[in-house]
Amino acid sequence: MKNKNKQFAVIGLGRFGTSVANALYKLGCEVLAIDADEERIQKFSEEVTHVVQADTTDENSLKALGIRNFDVVVVAIGEDIQANVLTTLLLKDLGVKYIVAKARNELHGKMLSKIGADRVVYPERDMGQRVAHNLVSTNVLEFIELSPNLSIVEITAPKSLVGQSLAEANLRAKYEVNVVAIKRGEELIVPPLPDEKIKTGDILIFVGQTKGVRKLEELE
Amino acid sequence: MKNKNKQFAVIGLGRFGTSVANALYKLGCEVLAIDADEERIQKFSEEVTHVVQADTTDENSLKALGIRNFDVVVVAIGEDIQANVLTTLLLKDLGVKYIVAKARNELHGKMLSKIGADRVVYPERDMGQRVAHNLVSTNVLEFIELSPNLSIVEITAPKSLVGQSLAEANLRAKYEVNVVAIKRGEELIVPPLPDEKIKTGDILIFVGQTKGVRKLEELE
Ligand SMILES: Nc1ncnc2c1ncn2[C@@H]1O[C@H](COP(=O)(O)OP(=O)(O)OP(=O)(O)O)[C@@H](O)[C@H]1O
Ligand SMILES: Nc1ncnc2c1ncn2[C@@H]1O[C@H](COP(=O)(O)OP(=O)(O)OP(=O)(O)O)[C@@H](O)[C@H]1O
Ligand SMILES: [Ca+2]
Ligand SMILES: [Ca+2]
Ligand SMILES: [Ca+2]
Ligand SMILES: [Ca+2]
Repeated sequence: MKNKNKQFAVIGLGRFGTSVANALYKLGCEVLAIDADEERIQKFSEEVTHVVQADTTDENSLKALGIRNFDVVVVAIGEDIQANVLTTLLLKDLGVKYIVAKARNELHGKMLSKIGADRVVYPERDMGQRVAHNLVSTNVLEFIELSPNLSIVEITAPKSLVGQSLAEANLRAKYEVNVVAIKRGEELIVPPLPDEKIKTGDILIFVGQTKGVRKLEELE
Repeated sequence: MKNKNKQFAVIGLGRFGTSVANALYKLGCEVLAIDADEERIQKFSEEVTHVVQADTTDENSLKALGIRNFDVVVVAIGEDIQANVLTTLLLKDLGVKYIVAKARNELHGKMLSKIGADRVVYPERDMGQRVAHNLVSTNVLEFIELSPNLSIVEITAPKSLVGQSLAEANLRAKYEVNVVAIKRGEELIVPPLPDEKIKTGDILIFVGQTKGVRKLEELE
């Protein structure tokens, strides 16, 4: 089964929950959005398949919604850690197959994993790290750590590289990174050939070992 | 000047602000963290260079902190839109060179840009979109849109590709994507050679046109 044909439910229509629900719906999925707050529900009713007002810490409400028939349930309740944890517990008990839960901090996240959340997400923490990396080096437009060792970085071509071909710049040998794309104005060169010459204003996108990528960020 | 040697200030120690401040500090930067709430300040005092309790909607407090001498100020006040907007306005007036501001929604973001924020961030919205993409296809571990046309995706090797070399799979021609790395257990192959054979359990990381990447997500 394609995941697009799965039944999704999103609990908690804060900014994160709203964004997940909207994006799933735009990707063509069936989405039920749930919130305890009547006002939030009304504001949101046009944007997903179904909306319903319910307190998900109440087992009977969850049963009445037929929540066990959903394939993926996202718990996006934020401030109220108790409600977040209790909801996750009940979903697990009721046999929901895949539960994604939003955590406020590491301790909360550990608890959610123990309870049986299949995936724990930390939206504010992750975006904070991303923004910090992007701020630290002058040329860096994006820095994303894909895994503890592997990163992707998007930098404005440093002056020292302009005029060289990718082969001449030889970044692969020096930094263990791979140029995967060049943005040149409206043009997107993906993947670029070794004899492609780096021009002023080019945006270079690299993937490589985090250590090498971090050294690249320091180029001027 | 390397950005590492710049002076950073972060206003508002919610989850996002805390994460930005911590990450900047770990990257070796000088960071001043500011919050109106005495308790938050005390909890945070070990983790950055300096912390100070101040209401940043008060121009005199900002002046007393010498905020104009900071190179980058991050406004991470969340719930209180008025305080967020007023703080940004005052920072601009006082001549701060680079202001990053966190927005709750698009309208708020537009307002911040008009006022003069140099970069507006939407942590919850962006992470929500990312999580939704990751949930939609079975094999996808990560999906990140680097720009409207360029995406990176991390997928578990689909059965149909196992046993083929990268050259044989010929994904570049079929989907306009580039395999930039393979994770195989603890091993990280970056960049992989064309004759590398795809094995069961491999995690393949691609960069390419968003359209091609989305098609790849559907492979089984
Ligand atoms: N028991 C509950 N059942 C259903 N919904 C709930 C329950 N408790 C809280 N919610 C809803 O969860 C939503 C999100 O919670 P909250 O605003 O506290 O999170 P947040 O971390 O600030 O989110 P964000 O940062 O993504 O905006 C709210 O709309 C709230 O009404
Ligand atoms: N006028 C102000 N001056 C300084 N700090 C302020 C001011 N107003 C609010 N803050 C601080 O901003 C911090 C973050 O705000 P808040 O918790 O509302 O954001 P949030 O969007 O929920 O954040 P997150 O989702 O990242 O946790 C709080 O610690 C709060 O004390
Ligand atoms: Ca909230
Ligand atoms: Ca808060
Ligand atoms: Ca909040
Ligand atoms: Ca938040």
